[in-house]
Amino acid sequence: VTDPIPTPVRGQRDAVLVLDQRALPHREDYLECRSVEEVAAAIRDLAVRGAPVLGITAAFGVALAAAGAAGRGDGPEEALEQARQAGQTLKATRPTAVNIAWAVDRVLAAATIEGTPSEGDAGDPSRLADVVLAEAERIEREDAEACAAIGAAGAELIPDPANILTHCNTGMLCTGGIGTAQGAILTAHRAGKRVHVWVDETRPVLQGARLTAWELGRLGVPRTLVADGAAGSLMAGGKVDLVLVGADRIAANGDVANKIGTYGLAVLAQHHGIPFYVAAPFSSVDRSTPSGAHIIVEERDPAEVRAPLGVQMASADTPVANPAFDVTPAELVSAIVTEHGVIRSPFQETLRRAGSVRGAA
Amino acid sequence: VTDPIPTPVRGQRDAVLVLDQRALPHREDYLECRSVEEVAAAIRDLAVRGAPVLGITAAFGVALAAAGAAGRGDGPEEALEQARQAGQTLKATRPTAVNIAWAVDRVLAAATIEGTPSEGDAGDPSRLADVVLAEAERIEREDAEACAAIGAAGAELIPDPANILTHCNTGMLCTGGIGTAQGAILTAHRAGKRVHVWVDETRPVLQGARLTAWELGRLGVPRTLVADGAAGSLMAGGKVDLVLVGADRIAANGDVANKIGTYGLAVLAQHHGIPFYVAAPFSSVDRSTPSGAHIIVEERDPAEVRAPLGVQMASADTPVANPAFDVTPAELVSAIVTEHGVIRSPFQETLRRAGSVRGAA
Repeated sequence: VTDPIPTPVRGQRDAVLVLDQRALPHREDYLECRSVEEVAAAIRDLAVRGAPVLGITAAFGVALAAAGAAGRGDGPEEALEQARQAGQTLKATRPTAVNIAWAVDRVLAAATIEGTPSEGDAGDPSRLADVVLAEAERIEREDAEACAAIGAAGAELIPDPANILTHCNTGMLCTGGIGTAQGAILTAHRAGKRVHVWVDETRPVLQGARLTAWELGRLGVPRTLVADGAAGSLMAGGKVDLVLVGADRIAANGDVANKIGTYGLAVLAQHHGIPFYVAAPFSSVDRSTPSGAHIIVEERDPAEVRAPLGVQMASADTPVANPAFDVTPAELVSAIVTEHGVIRSPFQETLRRAGSVRGAA
Repeated sequence: VTDPIPTPVRGQRDAVLVLDQRALPHREDYLECRSVEEVAAAIRDLAVRGAPVLGITAAFGVALAAAGAAGRGDGPEEALEQARQAGQTLKATRPTAVNIAWAVDRVLAAATIEGTPSEGDAGDPSRLADVVLAEAERIEREDAEACAAIGAAGAELIPDPANILTHCNTGMLCTGGIGTAQGAILTAHRAGKRVHVWVDETRPVLQGARLTAWELGRLGVPRTLVADGAAGSLMAGGKVDLVLVGADRIAANGDVANKIGTYGLAVLAQHHGIPFYVAAPFSSVDRSTPSGAHIIVEERDPAEVRAPLGVQMASADTPVANPAFDVTPAELVSAIVTEHGVIRSPFQETLRRAGSVRGAA
């Protein structure tokens, strides 16, 4: 089967090609980022978004810096320093998505172990660039594998038939594979289950309307687009069997940071006795964050709210609050699906255990 | 004090002037409706919206039809028939707002009692037109008085200081006076209470972003605009003291139909122990509707969701559900504020009693 969704990011030695998701679904343009600053700008300006693919993009960004240093003939120490600085720049772009920091630390660790001057011929900056790029590609490949595993595990939670409510975008555009929450939906659909997806448009950036509705359409999964405010009456009308969303960061206790509006869906799901599931790669679990209270929620440009789609709605002096994420407490989460399977409460314990399994693998 | 908000509708013998709220806040244009069809189109296309002012507009629409018949030299029976047909046309525009039917029935009742051939010189079609116009003006005046009374009663529910979350638009643009929910906020503000309003942008038509944020700005009431999905995290963060909204129809048991998204706010308010108040003129109470289950929820044009602000987002073949309203069950409503004061549960009983007081007045 030809994959009908364009790859969100392509890492090369001399460039990171970023699909400009802001132009979707109308145009499929790639930005050619030839510097770390251009990669960082693509992340900050939401040309690329979604926690898993942000990690992949950042990893390719570090690889780009290392290759640039090698190309300029920098010495080995200087090349490593360039890679580290690139990592800092990329970590600073979006504070909530833990995957960026996780991926940056991972490629830098690979560089330090395999590519530093202390390791014989690894003192070659060109070798360092190779190591970082290879590690970034490994992260991408592993993410694809994680998506497949998440999809398989998550699909088991989906009855047949099922009306599924989702929020934001969790598909091929934001991962290295078939997606997280959407990967589970796609897996269930391909297994022959009769799934129908209510797609929240997801203001302010409309990832649901622009990306999820489009991806599901291309993939042949039945879906209906709704304004975010419609979720409550859909549930009250018995039209939602489960809520299934992604995550930007999962704290050690199972609290989940995800796109603004997710928390309201979790409260509504509880009120209506509907399961609320979160699907994410284990790299979204940040065990150094004890609970949701410790998650920094990014406040974005007020223009996203004042001028939706660039059309000025509220006057430029209208005060705006624009938190990009909210935090859903663990007690509202029915289960978390990662590549290690379906994890249930008590999350403090079950996440720790899943992490140990992973560490041992 | 000069009223800084333009009057939403002006009824004349030969025209109904409708402020085109779709152009707000950028332009203050009036549509000159010279036929009932033009008035109906202005209502259907949301040039004018908001339950109370829809009633006023419909009443002026019937008056326009009666004056038209008189101007054409129609006979008295024919003129009355024209007015009745106009009423039918206007009632069909938007099924959820009960105020349209209420106002149409009221001006037609006045016409039948005071303006029909059976009543001596009232057989003059020109007199019929006068009677209908006078009754429409009375409805407008009474709505202004109701708003003042709602404002006074509602302001008592607002602590000092208070962070108030509101949805859609309930101000001067949708009533004949200072507004319903927003009238209460304005009254509290003018009484010196330190109020701050969280304004839901209210997708899909963005009445909050375009109208409420603008009105409150002009009135000097502190406000902050947010995406609809932000309400949950504002409440979780302790930043909301009460929710205060309007109503398009209130059933006999206290169930409330209001702009899509209202029900979700009511569930969130209950979850956080925050009061959820509804403010509306008593004409929004429809005692012939036993409960919310009997309220027809209008399904609007999918383009409102697919192409926000006219910008095509989701492709034209994307399936959309676009219910304009939802129903909040009475058990989630802390109090209903009408011109008869603050009414609390059991609403079946308290609404009936308030109606009797009104009937006797």
